[in-house]
Amino acid sequence: MIVDHLTPPYYAVIFTTIMKDNIVGYAQTALRMEELAKQQKGYLGIESSRSEIGITVSYWQTLDDIVAWKNNVEHTEARNLGREKWYQKYQLRICRVEREYGFEKSLK
Amino acid sequence: MIVDHLTPPYYAVIFTTIMKDNIVGYAQTALRMEELAKQQKGYLGIESSRSEIGITVSYWQTLDDIVAWKNNVEHTEARNLGREKWYQKYQLRICRVEREYGFEKSLK
Repeated sequence: MIVDHLTPPYYAVIFTTIMKDNIVGYAQTALRMEELAKQQKGYLGIESSRSEIGITVSYWQTLDDIVAWKNNVEHTEARNLGREKWYQKYQLRICRVEREYGFEKSLK
Repeated sequence: MIVDHLTPPYYAVIFTTIMKDNIVGYAQTALRMEELAKQQKGYLGIESSRSEIGITVSYWQTLDDIVAWKNNVEHTEARNLGREKWYQKYQLRICRVEREYGFEKSLK
């Protein structure tokens, strides 16, 4: 799903990952984290894609909202599990969205 | 490939896409655009993934570098072709990367 209803400025967390070969338990935890993120203050939306690498971008109202989500206890446990079991490598970037443009093909 | 050698602040363009069913010619143009982007002033790297949606994030030194790439003639032609033939929908966000964290599992 593409998130297309937001107005800058707001914040984005770009999370780029390379997984290990054995990722037993990952899908269930990832779904739970997405569900939990949606309940957090300041959550605006999420976009996710996976092929050779995975890219997940979550959107937030403020930097404080991102810090609060980072410090969520269940999220912290899942992150520790991810580092221990599932992720070969990741990069996480916190960004301020300054401009935004959308395009949608008309259906006719 | 994950881009992991950068130091904030710098800029990211998050380009999220839904393609049409028929994308003849797209792969060749996308590869050419990636090659051309790498030759532009201020280009820092690119990360790309495609499953249900596509997410491509390109990284740039300054906002001016992003505007110059947007105005590149060959890029403009490819973008027009994309709107006409390949993209059902897209969202493009220009962001300032403010913080960054990396993780890599040791091989032992």
